[in-house]
Amino acid sequence: MQDKKITDLLESFQAIGRTKNQGYTRTVYDQAWCQAQKQCVNIIKELGLVPWVDEIGNLYATADLTWPKEPVILVGSHLDTVVDGGLYDGLYGALAAVLSVSQIVKSGQRMGRPLVAVIFSEEEGSRFDATFTGSQYLLGRHLKDFEHLVDARGQTFGQIRQAAVAALSPFVQTASRLKIAQYLELHIEQGPILEKAGTDIGIVTTIVGQERFLIQLAGQANHAGTTPMDCRDDALRRAVGLLADLYRELAQIPDLRYTIGKVQLEPNVANVIPGLVTFALDLRHQDQSVLSEAVGVVAELVDRYRAKLERTTAVMPTQMDAGLQEEIAGACQSVGLTHQFLPSGAGHDAQVMGEQVPTAMIFVPSVGGVSHVPEETTTPADLENGQRVLTAVLAKLVG
Amino acid sequence: MQDKKITDLLESFQAIGRTKNQGYTRTVYDQAWCQAQKQCVNIIKELGLVPWVDEIGNLYATADLTWPKEPVILVGSHLDTVVDGGLYDGLYGALAAVLSVSQIVKSGQRMGRPLVAVIFSEEEGSRFDATFTGSQYLLGRHLKDFEHLVDARGQTFGQIRQAAVAALSPFVQTASRLKIAQYLELHIEQGPILEKAGTDIGIVTTIVGQERFLIQLAGQANHAGTTPMDCRDDALRRAVGLLADLYRELAQIPDLRYTIGKVQLEPNVANVIPGLVTFALDLRHQDQSVLSEAVGVVAELVDRYRAKLERTTAVMPTQMDAGLQEEIAGACQSVGLTHQFLPSGAGHDAQVMGEQVPTAMIFVPSVGGVSHVPEETTTPADLENGQRVLTAVLAKLVG
Repeated sequence: MQDKKITDLLESFQAIGRTKNQGYTRTVYDQAWCQAQKQCVNIIKELGLVPWVDEIGNLYATADLTWPKEPVILVGSHLDTVVDGGLYDGLYGALAAVLSVSQIVKSGQRMGRPLVAVIFSEEEGSRFDATFTGSQYLLGRHLKDFEHLVDARGQTFGQIRQAAVAALSPFVQTASRLKIAQYLELHIEQGPILEKAGTDIGIVTTIVGQERFLIQLAGQANHAGTTPMDCRDDALRRAVGLLADLYRELAQIPDLRYTIGKVQLEPNVANVIPGLVTFALDLRHQDQSVLSEAVGVVAELVDRYRAKLERTTAVMPTQMDAGLQEEIAGACQSVGLTHQFLPSGAGHDAQVMGEQVPTAMIFVPSVGGVSHVPEETTTPADLENGQRVLTAVLAKLVG
Repeated sequence: MQDKKITDLLESFQAIGRTKNQGYTRTVYDQAWCQAQKQCVNIIKELGLVPWVDEIGNLYATADLTWPKEPVILVGSHLDTVVDGGLYDGLYGALAAVLSVSQIVKSGQRMGRPLVAVIFSEEEGSRFDATFTGSQYLLGRHLKDFEHLVDARGQTFGQIRQAAVAALSPFVQTASRLKIAQYLELHIEQGPILEKAGTDIGIVTTIVGQERFLIQLAGQANHAGTTPMDCRDDALRRAVGLLADLYRELAQIPDLRYTIGKVQLEPNVANVIPGLVTFALDLRHQDQSVLSEAVGVVAELVDRYRAKLERTTAVMPTQMDAGLQEEIAGACQSVGLTHQFLPSGAGHDAQVMGEQVPTAMIFVPSVGGVSHVPEETTTPADLENGQRVLTAVLAKLVG
């Protein structure tokens, strides 16, 4: 497997967790996830590295059978997907990490620091009501914080985690927690910016902060035929007013991303006046003060419409390490690729890692800017470009 | 059972088809429906009348074992309910019809025309994608028009109809189609008008016409975090504009009732930009020309927003018979009750009957104007008032 490319590695996952919509569903610890993890172990071994697994199911690849005690250069991404997601989100960066580590090991370069690739067990939160459990565990979060979580079928995180990790144990070494000097993650952009600009490589400056709310308006459900217009308390009619005001007011805040993605009515029947409307509002910005300003605008409007506001997510923006950003820019120049700096609108493991260790992210263009759908794709040239830059940066860092 | 009141008769149905929400679910031919029909047969017999059933499951009560060949005065309502409906919608008018017929027969009054009570098998359309099947059948519609319909569990109308009717056959006579001279129906108002006005009895002038549409806006689903605001085609954002315009423009049309009761998003996930929004619009007016004007307004707006419009229901307004309305007004005066004329915003069997025979409807007040919910109720005094007026009108008509 001397001359394997990143595209070859990705191709070997095309039959794992494939859905009828031609997408991929690998939620943490499910059958497709276990199968994909086993395939990663095979790849790690074929590339001449040593595979390890920790108790939450994070997979690691090292140069030899020595589990590092000193701080490491860590590089990786996650194995799980959203439901009916694409082939590249997470898996691309995870496989590229293993490939880059193997290439550096193989080059015979002297390593001043141990180099470890990681394939995080879970990032998307598609099975349990928790995200980033793999990276959180690695940074010291207790297993028992997650063990009680229950999925849609009533299975607990604890039960299925043990079974999944036990299934892999005969084939791998047992990993304990690492000390981490720096963390690098390669990922598809999942947006249209690089493609539109015609840039080869994106260097992430900040992972945006995110606030998510449920907003609820109550009215009185009643018969659509027999209730005169002036006797109605129509929850949807008021909600439409609030929604229109939210779209208009939030548009005034520069660079804010705001999305109303989910709306639910009760009883949601054609001939009944809506009695209750609930919708989700997602706000993202790289500057926490702007995000807070947006939250203030929302709270005021919600109040004016006598609606209820419940905050369901609050994540602060995470700055990427400036020195590492410069290293990536230098690596792009050294391999002859163009680059630009941009914030990440999506959450990543790098967001969790970045709170505790110097962290950076490399993006490659997404065709059409689409992601989390079966059509998600990146050109083979861009996939290879990203992995080449990753190798170049890592070679510099371990030197 | 000489002195039974309408409230006593209704009370005997309180345990049949009761739901965990304290409502009632009797969809055509289901177990609760069969049990309720059997209870109606018992009541008909106890009141000294003769029960009959036709092949679709309409139940009839006559004075004796003679099935009338000449045109009859028909009085009744329906036995089925919406899902989780109340005790009074349909059942009140059906039982009052049987009680009034029995009182007139018992009074020894000479009858110039046969008097028949009918309990229609189905009106609500809660099980199959068809409404008013009982009254449509009575007016000559072929059974085979309904037999192929399939319910949510995959059972056909034909199969379960035969089983339900066969179960009742040993206890009743076999009815054939009637010739009908006039049709009368007593019903709860299901709206707030009589209660607000403090009027005892409502006399229906028109049953409103109804148009129902599905309106669909397509955009492009995408990641809420990574898609810049100026690269979005957000189906909900456009839908909110259309909804606000619909509410504003339709409010200009006098006496129009317009309801958006159902809204569905795809994929309807908090962190995905909506790719598709579909909503249902229900329009009602007693004047077909106004209804057509409203449809024109809707079509123009839908066009402006590049949305798709699909008509799913179109029912013309039905005029109630002027002479019968006068008879009801006279009967109210004779028993010392106040009355007012009003249109019906809900559909009724009287709408189907009114297209072919002189028809009228009597309304009693609904507490709080609510209906199609477990809380639906009418005071005992109003229930008895309505049935007294019905008896008085029928006594006049058969005389």
